Amino acid sequence: MTGPGPGAGPGAGVDLDLTADVVDLTRALVDIPSESGAEARLADAVEAALRSLPHLSVSRVGNSVAARTDLGHPERVIVAGHLDTVPAAGNLPSRLDGGLLHGLGACDMKGGVAVALRLAATVPEPAARDITYILYECEEVDGDRNGLGVIAAQRPELLAADLAILMEPSDAGVEAGCQGVLTADLTVRGRRAHTARAWRGVNAAHRAGAVLQRLADHTPERVVIDGLEYREGLNAVAVRAGVAGNVVPDECVITLNCRFAPSRSVEEAEAYVRGLFPGDGYDIEVTEVVPGALPGLGQEAVASLVRVLGATPRPKLGWTDVARFASLGVPALNYGPGDPVLAHTAEEYVPVAQLRECETRLRAWLSS
Amino acid sequence: MTGPGPGAGPGAGVDLDLTADVVDLTRALVDIPSESGAEARLADAVEAALRSLPHLSVSRVGNSVAARTDLGHPERVIVAGHLDTVPAAGNLPSRLDGGLLHGLGACDMKGGVAVALRLAATVPEPAARDITYILYECEEVDGDRNGLGVIAAQRPELLAADLAILMEPSDAGVEAGCQGVLTADLTVRGRRAHTARAWRGVNAAHRAGAVLQRLADHTPERVVIDGLEYREGLNAVAVRAGVAGNVVPDECVITLNCRFAPSRSVEEAEAYVRGLFPGDGYDIEVTEVVPGALPGLGQEAVASLVRVLGATPRPKLGWTDVARFASLGVPALNYGPGDPVLAHTAEEYVPVAQLRECETRLRAWLSS
Repeated sequence: MTGPGPGAGPGAGVDLDLTADVVDLTRALVDIPSESGAEARLADAVEAALRSLPHLSVSRVGNSVAARTDLGHPERVIVAGHLDTVPAAGNLPSRLDGGLLHGLGACDMKGGVAVALRLAATVPEPAARDITYILYECEEVDGDRNGLGVIAAQRPELLAADLAILMEPSDAGVEAGCQGVLTADLTVRGRRAHTARAWRGVNAAHRAGAVLQRLADHTPERVVIDGLEYREGLNAVAVRAGVAGNVVPDECVITLNCRFAPSRSVEEAEAYVRGLFPGDGYDIEVTEVVPGALPGLGQEAVASLVRVLGATPRPKLGWTDVARFASLGVPALNYGPGDPVLAHTAEEYVPVAQLRECETRLRAWLSS
Repeated sequence: MTGPGPGAGPGAGVDLDLTADVVDLTRALVDIPSESGAEARLADAVEAALRSLPHLSVSRVGNSVAARTDLGHPERVIVAGHLDTVPAAGNLPSRLDGGLLHGLGACDMKGGVAVALRLAATVPEPAARDITYILYECEEVDGDRNGLGVIAAQRPELLAADLAILMEPSDAGVEAGCQGVLTADLTVRGRRAHTARAWRGVNAAHRAGAVLQRLADHTPERVVIDGLEYREGLNAVAVRAGVAGNVVPDECVITLNCRFAPSRSVEEAEAYVRGLFPGDGYDIEVTEVVPGALPGLGQEAVASLVRVLGATPRPKLGWTDVARFASLGVPALNYGPGDPVLAHTAEEYVPVAQLRECETRLRAWLSS
């Protein structure tokens, strides 16, 4: 039997044509669904397309694919993008509307993946640096499933490089570094009582008023690093209190989300948050903290790329896998098509002009 | 076949012995489960026991039972109690421990029901006033299922009286009147944004800080009526905000519970709550409001009972069905065994001494 067997869904046996225009290639990628955890068919298609290119040596790790040139250049650059998307939101299949390509993952980040695949197919002999393409799974979910992390644990040699370009949407500009993220639960305690005799209790929700007012009054810092301004943020993203309709609540839990400049360590970030709430009666539990990544614009590998791209670097405020590369000792920056504000929205799209611009500029740099 | 058929559970075919001691009778009532909505077997047993008494004429309305003397006295008094309990909490069967009778409903309010049934059996010829005993269903749930309300709608003549004694737990003291209750949802609005760019949004949880602080700073009033102090209360009983872990929330809902003195109308109570939050950006929706009941100590029927019981009246702070009687034009007060603070707790109990005291004193009044 040839072709997809019974039960094979969209994407089974799909061939990707890497000689196609980057717009057509992006549409083909969008039209192969690849929600986090279900990237197998897309990874199969990407792996098969890259294996057909004789100048690349290809490895598969889970549903992540690595492809390397090995010309013996003294330097190596990684071009990376994730294959997965958030769940669909009525935004499939892809749709081209004037200069905008709409569809799930068009912005975050199948447009960037298409650019990477086009470079893989059309730059067989990079001039100054060898290239490792990394297309990986599970970026949109819990960090322990992240495909880059899995490669770092199982095949760390595949991530050795002098510079990594992460093709996350950055409006075809260079976004350098990224901020760290701390999440914590701040619990305010009280004492239950029947609301008909409320004075016998202590209302934890009322006590939480001072915490929320403190957050409202707080002015986050703006930290300048390598000329880039990282604007921090501290927000209550959830508040939960309530026992029953006639009971004074004895607990109010405020979930905090703190974005901190990459110059702060995770320990400093935690001390900063705890220092804002010095009173007793608060219990602060840090539930997750990941460091940011310094922009590293002073490093030669980063500086040369920025010069060639001709873009003025901007600070990356959200967290991306550049921090993961930084923790591996590889300078990294974000450079890719698409407006990052559109990521994870049902209306996400990528401008055709940015797809072409990213492909053209990166090809020029890799070929020069 | 005699006796309970297949599937009949506890309480099916149970005989209540109204000549038994009030403690034994209370235990028998506790041991017939009667969670709200499942009072049929207890109502059957109560109805059968009352029908065996020739001096009473008995009516059944749903799972509520009414039993009347008809001696032609110019006045009539209602002795009332609800048959239902909150759900069990590992507190069945009943357990006698020294002078305390433990078990589901022992306090709220099968002790009071037992006293009422003992009076029904042992006061065949009340001296000055005819008596209507009302044992009713569904007091612990939504007001529209309340057995008293059903009787008022279907058989209003059964509730005609000059005074009602509601045998809710009041520590064998007289608790007069009751406070009203208003519940409302106060919604604070904001604007969503990604937490990495929080300044593009407005955090509704942060704005809610001012509302909760206002509640913390608020001193509820103490209103004196007929010499009784009604201590009001205003509490946030629930707070809910949260979209996702990386999203600035655009809404925070605070559920308010207001206990107001019976001298305020429901319109005044609503205006009072709204007046505390005059700012814009708040949306206050009143979800339920029930009036209180004035103590009415100046009314002759109430005053004479208080004199005979020899108890100093206290204000009732929680809401009870005395308000329902008041709305029907019948003066009412709470007088029953058990500490009201223990109501709805797994540890509820009723002191044996209070059972005996309530029975003895009420019998003396009814017989005099």
